[in-house]
Amino acid sequence: MNTRHALIRSAAQAFDEFGYTRAKLAGISAGAGVSSGALHFHFDTKAAMAAAVESEATRALHALARHAQRKSPSPLQALIDSSHVIAQQLRRDVVVRAGFHLNCRTAHHSEVNLHQEWLECVRRTLERSAAHGQTPPHAVQEELTTTVVGATAGFEALARQDHNWLSRPALTGLWHTLLPQMATPKALTQLQAAGTESVISATGPAPAQPAAAHAAVG
Amino acid sequence: MNTRHALIRSAAQAFDEFGYTRAKLAGISAGAGVSSGALHFHFDTKAAMAAAVESEATRALHALARHAQRKSPSPLQALIDSSHVIAQQLRRDVVVRAGFHLNCRTAHHSEVNLHQEWLECVRRTLERSAAHGQTPPHAVQEELTTTVVGATAGFEALARQDHNWLSRPALTGLWHTLLPQMATPKALTQLQAAGTESVISATGPAPAQPAAAHAAVG
Repeated sequence: MNTRHALIRSAAQAFDEFGYTRAKLAGISAGAGVSSGALHFHFDTKAAMAAAVESEATRALHALARHAQRKSPSPLQALIDSSHVIAQQLRRDVVVRAGFHLNCRTAHHSEVNLHQEWLECVRRTLERSAAHGQTPPHAVQEELTTTVVGATAGFEALARQDHNWLSRPALTGLWHTLLPQMATPKALTQLQAAGTESVISATGPAPAQPAAAHAAVG
Repeated sequence: MNTRHALIRSAAQAFDEFGYTRAKLAGISAGAGVSSGALHFHFDTKAAMAAAVESEATRALHALARHAQRKSPSPLQALIDSSHVIAQQLRRDVVVRAGFHLNCRTAHHSEVNLHQEWLECVRRTLERSAAHGQTPPHAVQEELTTTVVGATAGFEALARQDHNWLSRPALTGLWHTLLPQMATPKALTQLQAAGTESVISATGPAPAQPAAAHAAVG
């Protein structure tokens, strides 16, 4: 892991633990095992570090969603699978988690708005699903969209105090409740609320890096 | 409005606008139209002000939920009505909004955990509803409970950037989506996703105080 990467990971660890405002640059350089001079060689300010964490997380989240889109057998299943792989990564990877939270901060103006992107992804998926006749005719697309986005955002928010909200069983329960409104009875029989095993396991176990970075901080 | 009350409202306004960390005591006393000495006569620290805002919001939220419980015609309708009156108050009353957010802060240890109380309220309601035969037999109570709590928490979290998430139409759409899983077809015909008009209007228009306090701050 190069210095810049170690700094991003250590910054993510600090933002995740203390929040942006209370995270200290001295703690971040120490956590990466480098001098404060080395930190300033790579990043001018704490805001620049936060932007790097956020951009790294955004890149990872987009890659996960694209992976699910490509590998899942249907649009609705891709949506379910995306939610599972994103939740998995939010639990496991401190850079993804910290970057996502930074993106949600009200005060903060970022180039991407991940909630807005997720909303548009859900909306497009439901439109594709309806075009394929897999959504029941009485379904109100906009209500389904906001319910899915609201519920997944809530699970993520609640997980900041209790990680279980982003566990696979918790998300599976959510899809059990929502899918009967979102899919025709026939489409429903082909959907797996727990996600497609091959898609979820392909995002693999936690990378070795976070554990190493964590040890350096502790 | 007495001085203590004016200070609580001004503190709520500052926490709502700047967040707890960046809110300044000088701004809070100015917003209440009092000296900093008067502020310190009532509150030793910013933490004490935050505790007062939170306790005032908690009291208000409990009163709203009790009101809905008493006036609504069935347990499930009381749950729907509670969500509407609480959302209405989160939109309208800065003390309720700021107190609720303070209660959700990870770093903060409060005597009450409003999300936990809401979770237990939803769980009890669904149990009562099942006992009255108004929940479909295939429903998994725990999955319904976490879906309702996750979705309502998400709407609240998303509303911090866009108030529309807590509008009456948005919440009505959420209940349209969730209720078919939560109620038998017969019970469903008697439920109003938009809330019971008499219960919601009884919590009344916005009190005059917030506008006055706001003017003093601006």
